[in-house]
Amino acid sequence: MKLTQRYRPNLSLLTDLYQLTMSNGYFKAGMHELSSVFHLFYRKQPFNGNFTIAAGLSDVIDLLQNFHFDEEDIEFLADQRNAKGEALFDQKFLNYLADLRFKGNLYAIPEGSVVFPFHPILRIETDLITAQLLETAMLNIINFQSLIATKSARICLAAEGDKVMEFGLRRAQGPDGGLSAARAAYIGGCHATSNVLAGRLYGIPISGTHAHSWVMSFENELDAFMSYASSQPDDSVLLVDTYDTLAGVKKAIVVAQHLAANGSRLKGIRLDSGDLCQLSIEARALLDEAGCTDVKIVASNDLDEYRIKALKEQGAKIDIWGVGTRLVTAYDQAALGGVYKLAALEDPKSGQMLDKVKLSEQNIKTSLPGKLNSMRLYAKSSLPVTDIIYNENEGFSSRYFNLYSNSISDIVYHKKETQLQAIFKQGKLVYQSPGLDAIRAFAMKQSRLFKDAPQHVNGITEKLHLKREKIINNLRNQNTK
Amino acid sequence: MKLTQRYRPNLSLLTDLYQLTMSNGYFKAGMHELSSVFHLFYRKQPFNGNFTIAAGLSDVIDLLQNFHFDEEDIEFLADQRNAKGEALFDQKFLNYLADLRFKGNLYAIPEGSVVFPFHPILRIETDLITAQLLETAMLNIINFQSLIATKSARICLAAEGDKVMEFGLRRAQGPDGGLSAARAAYIGGCHATSNVLAGRLYGIPISGTHAHSWVMSFENELDAFMSYASSQPDDSVLLVDTYDTLAGVKKAIVVAQHLAANGSRLKGIRLDSGDLCQLSIEARALLDEAGCTDVKIVASNDLDEYRIKALKEQGAKIDIWGVGTRLVTAYDQAALGGVYKLAALEDPKSGQMLDKVKLSEQNIKTSLPGKLNSMRLYAKSSLPVTDIIYNENEGFSSRYFNLYSNSISDIVYHKKETQLQAIFKQGKLVYQSPGLDAIRAFAMKQSRLFKDAPQHVNGITEKLHLKREKIINNLRNQNTK
Repeated sequence: MKLTQRYRPNLSLLTDLYQLTMSNGYFKAGMHELSSVFHLFYRKQPFNGNFTIAAGLSDVIDLLQNFHFDEEDIEFLADQRNAKGEALFDQKFLNYLADLRFKGNLYAIPEGSVVFPFHPILRIETDLITAQLLETAMLNIINFQSLIATKSARICLAAEGDKVMEFGLRRAQGPDGGLSAARAAYIGGCHATSNVLAGRLYGIPISGTHAHSWVMSFENELDAFMSYASSQPDDSVLLVDTYDTLAGVKKAIVVAQHLAANGSRLKGIRLDSGDLCQLSIEARALLDEAGCTDVKIVASNDLDEYRIKALKEQGAKIDIWGVGTRLVTAYDQAALGGVYKLAALEDPKSGQMLDKVKLSEQNIKTSLPGKLNSMRLYAKSSLPVTDIIYNENEGFSSRYFNLYSNSISDIVYHKKETQLQAIFKQGKLVYQSPGLDAIRAFAMKQSRLFKDAPQHVNGITEKLHLKREKIINNLRNQNTK
Repeated sequence: MKLTQRYRPNLSLLTDLYQLTMSNGYFKAGMHELSSVFHLFYRKQPFNGNFTIAAGLSDVIDLLQNFHFDEEDIEFLADQRNAKGEALFDQKFLNYLADLRFKGNLYAIPEGSVVFPFHPILRIETDLITAQLLETAMLNIINFQSLIATKSARICLAAEGDKVMEFGLRRAQGPDGGLSAARAAYIGGCHATSNVLAGRLYGIPISGTHAHSWVMSFENELDAFMSYASSQPDDSVLLVDTYDTLAGVKKAIVVAQHLAANGSRLKGIRLDSGDLCQLSIEARALLDEAGCTDVKIVASNDLDEYRIKALKEQGAKIDIWGVGTRLVTAYDQAALGGVYKLAALEDPKSGQMLDKVKLSEQNIKTSLPGKLNSMRLYAKSSLPVTDIIYNENEGFSSRYFNLYSNSISDIVYHKKETQLQAIFKQGKLVYQSPGLDAIRAFAMKQSRLFKDAPQHVNGITEKLHLKREKIINNLRNQNTK
């Protein structure tokens, strides 16, 4: 068993009850083995930004490979009762469930890709029951990790290449909230995490300073600094604000000079309260005057992309950014509203796949029909100019409906690139996930590519647009009486 | 092994790296076995509210009982290198770590209690290393579960006794974000969760309706409703907004009448979009006209306490509230800022416990010294009037410093109640956690008791106030030069 799986065993029951009651219903109606196509996508850029970094595929792969209901799961389900005290689930259905494994196809945007609203992050093609039972956990994984990878990318862009350390575990939403966030934050561009278990599970570099309690445990601050520096030679970042920040900096300088005299060095100091801009300027001056020009200044205290940008604009002398709560919980928008919609279903009579859309009062929220893929178009400059969703059965075409301007036009492009890749075929994993460092490098390249691309356009092929309009009209006529 | 532990194995490495580097430092300085006292508390009521429900103790108990570093953990730590490529940790320290278990005392506010800013939720008394190593995971667990239990209590109070269903798993912050949130939401007063694994792990009632995809999988909405109702007799809640809400309600009425004619019943309908107030009024009228007075109306769509209150004030005819994202992520404030501060440490020379405070530029943020407890005082009416923090060595007294008005006064009270209970003594669990249903009943009683208590006062004993002032002055004099 993979180490990560030991920390997250069988998650097959990590689903909404309605997925199981619907599956029971499909089973009773003889519809459970109908082929279906579902897409996972989101509708609105998080943080009022202009990109989202897809993340979480690796955990989705684990979920699908491990998908099964064990004996105890089945017993638990067999014990569930309805309002009348009757068994909620048919025994035949439960027997079927006990043998169910993932045997379908999965297509996905590779982790680290920039992805746009309505474009499929995942496309799953499998029997109706399996597709439903996997919905909730896949949404949970992709929604959260993509949210945090995106937040991390925004923060790292604001830091303009400075190192960013994630240390939000204590404020994260539960143990896995901390672990998944550490992984996603690293994908987005963070350089290290404080989370030791995340380091062990995912191979992320781990990093840290020390706490105020360290200083409080010694008779005075200088003793505390000396002792820490001697126990962590060359690796010490001293937290200088336990009593008074600038007085703390002066003591750190004593330590730095002591270390230098002994062939070692002080890595840095950390500011954790007060006016970080002013204090960093004064601390930098004190350090430089004392010849400690290589001692870095680390800052922390409710930082995010907005505060980092403001501090940089104000001229703060900060080299390394420690980011916690506002990164790992995506504090200003704590959820990505990813959804999962049925797009095609086998007709039990003809065996043909029929396209499906979910209506909404707003046409833009109405889902797209058919087996979708996404095409990224590049200009001659190698800059991406437009992402266009197309139906694989209709094929891609450059005549498209612009989702921003609601107008149809043709696009001239230099190069095109299909976005979805095959991950599982007939239940077999056919994709080798790049290592986490490769995913991170790709994500950082993607986020830089798209950060200043307000001219980038999001569209769907004209054919797909017309097909959706037609289905919407048919459905409205049939079902609104 | 407990079932919950199978889903969350050894979390001892779920800590910040600095806890380990500090522990290594304490070990090298011969300070690792010094007795210490730490408190876990928060400083500001979440959601601008007037109470917080403590939750998560049960997982903290599991953490402490299971606290150990296994062979692979130690190997991982032994592989860590500093900037010079030298081992980050001393081998002797790692040997010590391999044998380390929790042997201290833990005192805690029982789960479900209302707790106030600065009052200890946990007090831990153990050797300095163990106290540090456990800090991050304890904060992670208590911060998140208390946040969600509080959010849930606020939502349930707004629902005024109506049933509230939690179904946020798909938007929760990772798998455990969904599991811990389901548990905490139930503690806060939710009646059920959609999360099947949470139902299995924690014994929470599970509940659900069906998805739009169910309706889309049938040729028409009426067939879909009929099929679902027949597969879930007496337990069906029909989602009526796939095409047109009121047209959907009319079809649900056909189903309800069909079920009634067959000795069964339709449990409810669910509204998931549009103007929930207006639609619920119109749906109720249609249902009542058709004699379906016992068919409940369930509503969902980004609900929280504010929207539920507004809908009730507008006269919405909603019986059951489905709450997701805004509950499980505590969307409007995604983290409780709980902290963990050293309050006393053994003097290596005298063996005496010395009181400690962490300074801050704002005195109110300066931590409280000594072994703290909290006393709740009740008026003759049985209403709680004041919670007062006291130092156990000094004892409780009714002369106190009011943390709101910054003034000293005496309080007359009818009954007093110590808040912290012994959980572990010398590493042995001495506390039997009440079952989850008992915790929930207690939490609901507590939240009702405190919801309209703006007159409730938060204070510390005068003695404790004076002691803190004295220590602050000493520290400032010693350390700010």
